[in-house]
Amino acid sequence: MNRGGGRTADHSWMLAMRFVLPLLAAAFVAMPATAQNSPAPSEPKAQDTAALSSLAWLEGCWKGTAGPREFREQWMPLQGAMMIGVSQTIEKGATQGYEFLRRAIAENDYRAKGLEVADDEVFVSDGSKCDCGNILDILGHDNRIAVTDPVYPVYVDTNVMAGHTGEGDENGRYEGLVYLECNAENGFVPALPSEPVDLIYLCYPNNPTGATATRAQLETWVAYALKHDAIILFDAAYEAYIQAADVPHSIYEIPGARKCAIEFRSFSKSGGFTGTRCAFTIVPHELLAKTTTGERKPLHPLWNRRFSTKFNGVSYITQRGAEALYSDAGKAQVAALVELYMGNAALLRAAATECGLAVYGGENAPYIWVRGPEGRTSWEMFDKILNEANVVITPGSGFGLCGEGYFRISAFNSRANVEEVARRFQALSW
Amino acid sequence: MNRGGGRTADHSWMLAMRFVLPLLAAAFVAMPATAQNSPAPSEPKAQDTAALSSLAWLEGCWKGTAGPREFREQWMPLQGAMMIGVSQTIEKGATQGYEFLRRAIAENDYRAKGLEVADDEVFVSDGSKCDCGNILDILGHDNRIAVTDPVYPVYVDTNVMAGHTGEGDENGRYEGLVYLECNAENGFVPALPSEPVDLIYLCYPNNPTGATATRAQLETWVAYALKHDAIILFDAAYEAYIQAADVPHSIYEIPGARKCAIEFRSFSKSGGFTGTRCAFTIVPHELLAKTTTGERKPLHPLWNRRFSTKFNGVSYITQRGAEALYSDAGKAQVAALVELYMGNAALLRAAATECGLAVYGGENAPYIWVRGPEGRTSWEMFDKILNEANVVITPGSGFGLCGEGYFRISAFNSRANVEEVARRFQALSW
Repeated sequence: MNRGGGRTADHSWMLAMRFVLPLLAAAFVAMPATAQNSPAPSEPKAQDTAALSSLAWLEGCWKGTAGPREFREQWMPLQGAMMIGVSQTIEKGATQGYEFLRRAIAENDYRAKGLEVADDEVFVSDGSKCDCGNILDILGHDNRIAVTDPVYPVYVDTNVMAGHTGEGDENGRYEGLVYLECNAENGFVPALPSEPVDLIYLCYPNNPTGATATRAQLETWVAYALKHDAIILFDAAYEAYIQAADVPHSIYEIPGARKCAIEFRSFSKSGGFTGTRCAFTIVPHELLAKTTTGERKPLHPLWNRRFSTKFNGVSYITQRGAEALYSDAGKAQVAALVELYMGNAALLRAAATECGLAVYGGENAPYIWVRGPEGRTSWEMFDKILNEANVVITPGSGFGLCGEGYFRISAFNSRANVEEVARRFQALSW
Repeated sequence: MNRGGGRTADHSWMLAMRFVLPLLAAAFVAMPATAQNSPAPSEPKAQDTAALSSLAWLEGCWKGTAGPREFREQWMPLQGAMMIGVSQTIEKGATQGYEFLRRAIAENDYRAKGLEVADDEVFVSDGSKCDCGNILDILGHDNRIAVTDPVYPVYVDTNVMAGHTGEGDENGRYEGLVYLECNAENGFVPALPSEPVDLIYLCYPNNPTGATATRAQLETWVAYALKHDAIILFDAAYEAYIQAADVPHSIYEIPGARKCAIEFRSFSKSGGFTGTRCAFTIVPHELLAKTTTGERKPLHPLWNRRFSTKFNGVSYITQRGAEALYSDAGKAQVAALVELYMGNAALLRAAATECGLAVYGGENAPYIWVRGPEGRTSWEMFDKILNEANVVITPGSGFGLCGEGYFRISAFNSRANVEEVARRFQALSW
């Protein structure tokens, strides 16, 4: 709104007020009692104004503290039979009552675990799939981009759509992308790239392989990013499924990551918000990116601007729902949901293992990644399992060349269905 | 998912099934009665299978019609004590039960008014602000872009963020954009550009001026776009406020517009969905755009791809709520809301007119656009009205150079507040 120029510094307090006033004015209009009770305000009476004038001393800017809370009030002059003011209560740098979800996230998912994340580094969105794509809006078009193979297809497709790649080849690989191969030998965590890259997509716990990255592995990646001025786009949508005590839940558990990593998380997998759409992205203030002229600039204001200009937020109902996931009852329900799905994963792992197949994942992730018999393609296995067991799995080759010969089983189902699938798997002959 | 290659044409029916099966399987699993009543399926008994086998003839693909509806069923072979199938009911080219909102929109907002819009040309989104920005994802970076002045800032800002402009000058105008001046003389509908442009943002009823474009004016723009291979981005977010019978509600009322225009609409202004986020965008199949190599390609598949890859839809609850706006009760409620705000607009128009100011808009739009006294800037008027009447208006200069000297009053408020504002306006001396 303030693009037209011509405003002076004096207006800065008014600018803030323009946004606050419509929300708070009703609560801070001081009126004489007679006027308050009248539904259609009438001409102010002399005695009303006189009664109110005993409060005229409030005019001006007031500031105070009460414990950790800071209050601010600004009262305009008594005008007719009305005094209008705005107030703000600030605690730990955030306006209370408006940023409840950002705060709940930063407090519960990060600060309670000793990780530094400020409330205003949390951006609440309608999905981490969306954010993974939208983040490209604030990054340049000439970055060298590394993705894993197998890969969550959105990372690749959004770059293709943004014109960041050349043509796709017959294996579905796009010219210009650096593919980091993940396989059983490297535990589905790739080696560092042999050529320099600027953007690195990492997803742990991984979709589709269910693999996790150790602290040491993530340290290697953070060190690489810091050394090469690269940015890690860390997708932690499945972190709630981590069972092992020593697997990092956040890239920010690695020292230095606040300087080189953006983290994506989702309520879809923890709280079942897949359909209601709620997720968040962390962009640390310290994260700088190099401009084409070689300057280093923070990404936080860019993402903030992108967010305000091209998005209008998540509905209040949905945000209050997400906040409730951090209540004691909410945490217990999330834990029960995760336990159910991880129990499913254990059953599916066991069933596939009993078939004599090599099985990965499913221990800290809701996905089981199965290597089929030698020489069978992913789609051949899809056909076999569909036709012989009437079960739908996801062919690994859909996630990339390195997924060929694998298939993914999802643990997101009812226990009864999973037990039935396990029974049918055991009846298959491979 | 199907990027890995290696699939044959035989799989095409399975591909469709992969998406449909998880949704419908429960409804179409035919099981013997004993198994149906058992919560944890047990080993199939011989007599159950025998009972079910009387239905084994269903195996295969079935198709039928009943009135305007077409049914399709596909049953897999009897397997153990279970037969699995999928079904689809199609009416007028759409799968029933899943595309309810797209259909309600196309039917009520377009086809019922004699305008050709197919269900699959409707894309339901989380806001037309978002779509106005996101549409740039499928358009090139070298388009010559025309915006009006005054302008809804999102059109400009999203282009600035995408790198489509040069630097901003001291008037807030960006190098590389073509500004089409709107003023009282041209009724706030601009003349055609004197230089060639590729993209044209038009918003009618207009935010901020409240102006509407006549059929003849829109015909001129459509003719221009068709002649110059330009695309019109038509923002009709406020169409519900049109009162005059001869003002077009949709760009598609103009013959030829399906070949050159994308239309944005919103439930925010009609149904009060501002906070719950629901809107839609129409991308006609006939709309072609020129590629850099001079070919003409349809934009519909590109937008469809952008939509599926970078967005995950609007929640079911919100979509059902939006659908309800098209019920008889919903239509009556929308009409009552519009009537309230247009009544507000009439009061505000009258109040500003009585002040001796030149007043525009507010007759087919919820915004009143007021010209202040000669020589007064928009921000001077903002200060005066804030300080003397304790009322917040929007300075016109925030919408562009041509908005200087104007201010916008919004009719979105309670009747009591509007009456109070009208009273205070009349008390101001200009």
